[in-house]
Amino acid sequence: MVIKMRPEATEDEKQDIINFLKDEGLKAHPSQSGGVTLIGITGPLENIDISDLRALDGVEDVVRLTAPYKLVSRHFRQEDTVITFENGVTIGGDKIVVMAGPGAVEGEEQIETAAMICKSMGAKILRGDAFISRTSPYSFQGLEKEGLKLLRQAADNNGMLVISEILDTHHIDDFLKYVDILLVGPRNMQNFELLKGMGNIEKPVMIKRGLSATIDEWLMAAEYVVTGGNHKVMLCERGIRTFEPKTRNTLDISAIPVLKELTHLPIVVDPSRAVGFRDKVIPLARAAAAAGADSIMVEVHPFPEKAQSDKAQQLYPDQFDQLMKETKAIAEAIGRKL
Amino acid sequence: MVIKMRPEATEDEKQDIINFLKDEGLKAHPSQSGGVTLIGITGPLENIDISDLRALDGVEDVVRLTAPYKLVSRHFRQEDTVITFENGVTIGGDKIVVMAGPGAVEGEEQIETAAMICKSMGAKILRGDAFISRTSPYSFQGLEKEGLKLLRQAADNNGMLVISEILDTHHIDDFLKYVDILLVGPRNMQNFELLKGMGNIEKPVMIKRGLSATIDEWLMAAEYVVTGGNHKVMLCERGIRTFEPKTRNTLDISAIPVLKELTHLPIVVDPSRAVGFRDKVIPLARAAAAAGADSIMVEVHPFPEKAQSDKAQQLYPDQFDQLMKETKAIAEAIGRKL
Amino acid sequence: MVIKMRPEATEDEKQDIINFLKDEGLKAHPSQSGGVTLIGITGPLENIDISDLRALDGVEDVVRLTAPYKLVSRHFRQEDTVITFENGVTIGGDKIVVMAGPGAVEGEEQIETAAMICKSMGAKILRGDAFISRTSPYSFQGLEKEGLKLLRQAADNNGMLVISEILDTHHIDDFLKYVDILLVGPRNMQNFELLKGMGNIEKPVMIKRGLSATIDEWLMAAEYVVTGGNHKVMLCERGIRTFEPKTRNTLDISAIPVLKELTHLPIVVDPSRAVGFRDKVIPLARAAAAAGADSIMVEVHPFPEKAQSDKAQQLYPDQFDQLMKETKAIAEAIGRKL
Amino acid sequence: MVIKMRPEATEDEKQDIINFLKDEGLKAHPSQSGGVTLIGITGPLENIDISDLRALDGVEDVVRLTAPYKLVSRHFRQEDTVITFENGVTIGGDKIVVMAGPGAVEGEEQIETAAMICKSMGAKILRGDAFISRTSPYSFQGLEKEGLKLLRQAADNNGMLVISEILDTHHIDDFLKYVDILLVGPRNMQNFELLKGMGNIEKPVMIKRGLSATIDEWLMAAEYVVTGGNHKVMLCERGIRTFEPKTRNTLDISAIPVLKELTHLPIVVDPSRAVGFRDKVIPLARAAAAAGADSIMVEVHPFPEKAQSDKAQQLYPDQFDQLMKETKAIAEAIGRKL
Repeated sequence: MVIKMRPEATEDEKQDIINFLKDEGLKAHPSQSGGVTLIGITGPLENIDISDLRALDGVEDVVRLTAPYKLVSRHFRQEDTVITFENGVTIGGDKIVVMAGPGAVEGEEQIETAAMICKSMGAKILRGDAFISRTSPYSFQGLEKEGLKLLRQAADNNGMLVISEILDTHHIDDFLKYVDILLVGPRNMQNFELLKGMGNIEKPVMIKRGLSATIDEWLMAAEYVVTGGNHKVMLCERGIRTFEPKTRNTLDISAIPVLKELTHLPIVVDPSRAVGFRDKVIPLARAAAAAGADSIMVEVHPFPEKAQSDKAQQLYPDQFDQLMKETKAIAEAIGRKL
Repeated sequence: MVIKMRPEATEDEKQDIINFLKDEGLKAHPSQSGGVTLIGITGPLENIDISDLRALDGVEDVVRLTAPYKLVSRHFRQEDTVITFENGVTIGGDKIVVMAGPGAVEGEEQIETAAMICKSMGAKILRGDAFISRTSPYSFQGLEKEGLKLLRQAADNNGMLVISEILDTHHIDDFLKYVDILLVGPRNMQNFELLKGMGNIEKPVMIKRGLSATIDEWLMAAEYVVTGGNHKVMLCERGIRTFEPKTRNTLDISAIPVLKELTHLPIVVDPSRAVGFRDKVIPLARAAAAAGADSIMVEVHPFPEKAQSDKAQQLYPDQFDQLMKETKAIAEAIGRKL
Repeated sequence: MVIKMRPEATEDEKQDIINFLKDEGLKAHPSQSGGVTLIGITGPLENIDISDLRALDGVEDVVRLTAPYKLVSRHFRQEDTVITFENGVTIGGDKIVVMAGPGAVEGEEQIETAAMICKSMGAKILRGDAFISRTSPYSFQGLEKEGLKLLRQAADNNGMLVISEILDTHHIDDFLKYVDILLVGPRNMQNFELLKGMGNIEKPVMIKRGLSATIDEWLMAAEYVVTGGNHKVMLCERGIRTFEPKTRNTLDISAIPVLKELTHLPIVVDPSRAVGFRDKVIPLARAAAAAGADSIMVEVHPFPEKAQSDKAQQLYPDQFDQLMKETKAIAEAIGRKL
Repeated sequence: MVIKMRPEATEDEKQDIINFLKDEGLKAHPSQSGGVTLIGITGPLENIDISDLRALDGVEDVVRLTAPYKLVSRHFRQEDTVITFENGVTIGGDKIVVMAGPGAVEGEEQIETAAMICKSMGAKILRGDAFISRTSPYSFQGLEKEGLKLLRQAADNNGMLVISEILDTHHIDDFLKYVDILLVGPRNMQNFELLKGMGNIEKPVMIKRGLSATIDEWLMAAEYVVTGGNHKVMLCERGIRTFEPKTRNTLDISAIPVLKELTHLPIVVDPSRAVGFRDKVIPLARAAAAAGADSIMVEVHPFPEKAQSDKAQQLYPDQFDQLMKETKAIAEAIGRKL
């Protein structure tokens, strides 16, 4: 971190800052030339708030040069985190794992059929929300606990793992019983009480990027979980909000190589939620694989036109089949498997 | 709502859509000319998801022409909602009410001093967070329940009301005991479990706009609370995320007149959180009053440089005094009081 | 400017950077602790490109701590720039000056009537575009040179000054003949050939902020004009592009106090173009005055419903009258005049 | 286009609107139910401005359901536009064409070496700016006309075509003499005078997307050129501005499938300008090819660390070699060539 002093700052102000930094357990490294004083700061910077320094007299600006996160950073751990499940599936290794299933669990037959289809085409993990985060109180809110049970049953019948979104700390016990990967959705990416809850469990957690979250904030959300003791965290890019209305959100494809440099955690991409229209999902899944994603999550419904939510973005089974074939070809072109 | 059919859509597809709409309890109003078919839709539109219609065969686009919210809309209720407290303070009427206090409750002396200062300069409502929503797990997380008690005590000693941010449904009982207005922060604006909880209480709730929330989504968050039975809801603009780095967020001043047209709920503006630097807070408070805000929330600390969070944006007492005087002059210039 | 070295950077890489900086006429100020090397840089930084430094071996990050502009900055010139016209009107002083008139010059009667109305209600400067920047090639493109003549004539008949948008370097001579202030529109804010042209003239220039321009980029556009030798530059905030669809653009009200700190140039606000709907223009004009704008530009048309462009945002004459009265009251409340 | 009337609108207002539409040569299709009146509009909609309709009495909202562009749309022309050059290179067909070269032409040896390298590794088109669009007046502004000559010579010596950015209508003649494809940069995407100039020439034009341009606005910029008579237009996605600071811009990868649906024009992607850091360019080039881009433009410099601009994003020759190999593998995986 570096402080830039105002041109008119006094020697006393500079000394006060150096003393303040000492009190906080930090070291100050002043340098000066041509009337500009810079103070480099080293030490346990994760404890300090950048805005605290901005408030000191004589300070013109403060810039963070080190990342605010630690445990999730590539500096802290060089090798990729690989999350391994009991059935041998691994996320973060050579293989690109596909998570697929309907937007929401709607009934036994629907989820059972979806699981069968997705499994037969190569998906390893079954998705389906039982508690649904809906912007309108008038929309279908999900089958709740009953939905989790149906999801588990459909996955077990088809030899799949289960991922589903958790909305509140009250539901943790039910999720631990029925679900293999707990998904923290974009709207809860900074629900810190929920993140703390995720730090206390042993099952893997997938954190979706908030609609306007920076990559740093997203990594800080992951840091919340890891500091709690749960190292099995994945990050899922699902589009950010921009001014462009032709797509639901703008898939930030660059986030993949950026994250690969910054963190050791596995990276998942969800093109369905990002773009919002099924005919755009396949090219984006290909792009995600080409850019280096470790896993792809897509929405597939046996009968999309009958879906109780997000009809427009759920793939038809034959589209999913095409997606799997094309993404496999891409994976192999870059030396990975699917 | 209006559906635009694809130029190549068949008569059967059109008929299927009309039947689908009937099944959903809606009426279809097709019109056609020059090869373009439009289908107007009327009826209980709040039950329908726009993306469901986009998924139907033959549909090129669907546009919502009616608001997705109902109870919070100006169409539903013409007169302004005025929230009245036992001590006679009202929000939403002629008077611009000021909420002030430190970012966080840090200790008895701090909050007591802050309350005294803010009250003496004209603030009616004391703010201060006891549970703090911090982006870093390494930052000060608040005094929690003890903080709520100190806040209540300081307010009572100075004849003030209390507002504080709630982070999780687990804490509702404590908040009902100590707090007069429950604040749902921007990071929880779409924490729908928390919003449902707010619908079941009788105390007023203030919902801050999410960092990238549209005005429609924000009103839908309010709709969640009101459909639960709690009509005492205020909306607080606190800046949105843009590409501009010179301010923490971009205060959306236009949201004030836009909301005044769309909703009957009172509108609060928080310039401290929006801009992030104390020397910019005063002109923005003036602007908010000039644009028609019903209330202004600002952060004031007896000793900002010693604050445990957000030092850079908390006002010095003499700055708050200046803010009150200047904002009062603005209020009077537009025929209101402060 | 500060360079942060990678943890694994070698002593040779560090030395190479120091030598490179010397060759560029800059001084290096290395400091080190706990494995982190920072190199502060001082000297003529305006000549160096930050991305050049990022490209050097061993560099992890580079941060600019000094502004990239010089002549337009408050450090370079402490006192406010005040632009004075022959008829005594000044922009940048105590008085808030109002520029008003139709979106486009449409004919002699229209612009003459508009001028009379605007003058009678207190506007000093007549606006009206003759060359129109339209997103569609099928829209009305303006009366061109004939429009400039009509604008000049209407202004002269009513004792007003003239401002109009210039689109291309080819038109400079015509503008110098008929116009008092040349307006560079948001779509040309980084048309650097046009900006260079503006640097070679002696008449005042107003630069509107680009739709997604940062404040720094906007000031750099002004720097282009000032380095050319023309110091009579004003900046006009007219809304930035965000994800919010309820307004045409989002008026960045915070830009006013931010610019007041960074630059000595006068600040104009155009609420008409920002919000796009006439009934929201009045509260935003009040807010702009309250936040410290030096001038306000609004669109007024004798018969808005007959306007050939931007009908929805042009004020009716009686609305403009109300705007003037309310903005005057705000101006006086903060110790200015209108 | 559809007009939604206000609930309180009168029959007279409705009739006035219908008459207004008739006068404009349009047909009105009113439908009504439950107090909501909608008026569908058909006819030559490209002539009408949506904000004009918003200004009519009784109108609550107006929504455009048809695209504002015509000649560039897929409805107007079903087959892909394929641009063919004399030497047999085609853009828009099966082959993914690569455009490569330095950010700027800096001298004879530099551009000659760059051309040789790029050609030997498979690039068909040589890029290099001679007139440079720089945000700072203090930065290197290019070799201008001399640069165009050197670029042409290097391309001819190596059997390549030439693309370079044009900044002003004054330079058109020089560009026609030396350049094969004229590039309109993002900062000039809405410089309509320049676009009109591009409509009058016969050489192909590539339009880069503005930093905050919507896809519709971008297509309208292309429409300006095509209505002028020049049909040889390509579109180049190069990143949009968002709140994310880790990349220079956010590459909007979804724009590729969206454009493929909306327009018949070829689509180019420039990952260098989008991301701004060379080590992220390769994965993004792979992603662009995987998503369906027709051409990829990248910056390659013989000695990036000596480049006079944008050092950080220009590829080393061996990186370009890797990019070509990996992108070729992706192209083949989706049935195309490179």
